[in-house]
Amino acid sequence: MSDQILLAHGGGGSLMQQLIRQELLPLYGRPEGEGELVLHDAALLELPAAAGPLAFTCDGYVVQPLEFPGGDIGRLAVIGTANDLAMAAARPRYLSVSLILEEGLPLVLLRRVVASMAATAEQCGVRIATGDTKVVERGKADGLFITTSGVGTVEQAQPVQPAAIRPGDQLLVSGDLGRHGVAILAARHGLDLQPPVLSDCAPLWPEVEALLRAGVTPHCLRDLTRGGLASALQELAEGAGLELRVEETAVPVIEPVARVCDLLGFEPLHLANEGRFLAVVPPAQLQAALAVLAPAGGAWIGIAAALAAGLAPRVLLRTALGTERLLLPSSGELLPRIC
Amino acid sequence: MSDQILLAHGGGGSLMQQLIRQELLPLYGRPEGEGELVLHDAALLELPAAAGPLAFTCDGYVVQPLEFPGGDIGRLAVIGTANDLAMAAARPRYLSVSLILEEGLPLVLLRRVVASMAATAEQCGVRIATGDTKVVERGKADGLFITTSGVGTVEQAQPVQPAAIRPGDQLLVSGDLGRHGVAILAARHGLDLQPPVLSDCAPLWPEVEALLRAGVTPHCLRDLTRGGLASALQELAEGAGLELRVEETAVPVIEPVARVCDLLGFEPLHLANEGRFLAVVPPAQLQAALAVLAPAGGAWIGIAAALAAGLAPRVLLRTALGTERLLLPSSGELLPRIC
Repeated sequence: MSDQILLAHGGGGSLMQQLIRQELLPLYGRPEGEGELVLHDAALLELPAAAGPLAFTCDGYVVQPLEFPGGDIGRLAVIGTANDLAMAAARPRYLSVSLILEEGLPLVLLRRVVASMAATAEQCGVRIATGDTKVVERGKADGLFITTSGVGTVEQAQPVQPAAIRPGDQLLVSGDLGRHGVAILAARHGLDLQPPVLSDCAPLWPEVEALLRAGVTPHCLRDLTRGGLASALQELAEGAGLELRVEETAVPVIEPVARVCDLLGFEPLHLANEGRFLAVVPPAQLQAALAVLAPAGGAWIGIAAALAAGLAPRVLLRTALGTERLLLPSSGELLPRIC
Repeated sequence: MSDQILLAHGGGGSLMQQLIRQELLPLYGRPEGEGELVLHDAALLELPAAAGPLAFTCDGYVVQPLEFPGGDIGRLAVIGTANDLAMAAARPRYLSVSLILEEGLPLVLLRRVVASMAATAEQCGVRIATGDTKVVERGKADGLFITTSGVGTVEQAQPVQPAAIRPGDQLLVSGDLGRHGVAILAARHGLDLQPPVLSDCAPLWPEVEALLRAGVTPHCLRDLTRGGLASALQELAEGAGLELRVEETAVPVIEPVARVCDLLGFEPLHLANEGRFLAVVPPAQLQAALAVLAPAGGAWIGIAAALAAGLAPRVLLRTALGTERLLLPSSGELLPRIC
């Protein structure tokens, strides 16, 4: 087999079969004794008989570089989609993986990404059930794009969505912000941070499950990916028709991230994360939620409030100086192709 | 709004919200009165209480050109994935749509593709439940890549898979072969075919459902996409551990397709289709299956047979001259980026 991806690897013929059988089978890793993988057009899902409603999501991944401190595109593609399910209070169960490969992609790189996806799927407790591979000519893609979709089982009866947020609800983040953005920035621009800042990319379902088990019934959950906390808050304010008030000093940011932001003029609240979420919980559950999230660095950051008459939904930030200002989402992304 | 896709449209900020609300909402078309679209990380699926097992599949689409006689990448992305579900005897229910856009893509083109996806989803009876959009820099993609994944409900109790094929089973195709391949070839190379050959791309579930309603219990179904009939037969022979015998003269090919093949040295059995499938049925059901498939151009093409001792699974073609030869899959694809 060539040590690079060839156009013919995407053609549906024997070379594609070879690619699947020699390089991609680790994705579909299965316990011993479960027999041969059935290579067919669709996979059958085995779900618990009493499973609740299903959640369904998808995300494309185009991050550059393909490997970065603390992760790679394969790990991101598994975690990101599993996390979107977790944000619907759904236990991630099954993923699909669609690869778009650029002709000339080194097979060793593909192998590392595939191994990373397989290991991450195991860490997340999800099974990669089905996949697809396409190859495009040199210069028509950027090494490797991955799209994953996921199916999960919803484990909270009450809806988890922006419209469920009520005035008085408490806002918490699950950890310090901005590490993924800084890790990508450093990798892309050759910043030699000492110590290096690693991407925070990590599965979120374990923390969501711990919240549910502690009796917390979140009104909304949102992972803080593209656009960071600022975009998430703005979308939630609009979806809820409320004002969200955030204390800037309460938002956890580690010192190396704050330093890079100071130096380059970024705001940590705009930086992408891949292992952090915002939880909006009823006021009476604040302590229970904090008890779950604080040990891993989570913190209370603010509250939801009714809108004064005539005002549009907005996010108000009280700064370290005690002044208030609107927190606006960025119009685009400060760092394109962060995920 | 710019008339082209900008990098910032993919950044998770306000421009991306604008793109979604102004350009992509038609994808999620919903009946009047069903209220606002909930823009959230994952969609909840509403499935019939007595729904059978679920089928799950995904496919990436990188076809060039993006629009071709008889279809476009958007129509293909909906039909291809819905058809993969149909091949598991599953009624297509929900799709996810992930777009990877190249900076500079004309918005008018995106609008046409989005409108085509919406119309095709309605034709297929599937709902687009969730989506994602990424933008990469000019020259890092080829206009537009689409990945769709699909969830369907399996409507036949017996497994539909290569391992279920038995000696004596009958092989049928659902229509004439090679139109999609020839349509792409003509569009790409400026062949002026008179009359033009249109892609066969079409939903397959209606024909599968008609088979099931007629009491046919197919042992296997396979759509004849990349690699065409030749690759599909080879994969099925290997999956079943059998010999498949095909009569070349029984395989339906329309005259304009045969003419292009003669001229350019292609074989219709290797050309891609996007609206044709192979059905493998028990011998007693041949007439019932033909009664369903023949009116739309379907035909019997051969049988499955036990392997003689010591032989590997294979596909045997009896040619128009009465001689027999092995039908081998192509190693790659004659026409890259056919879907």
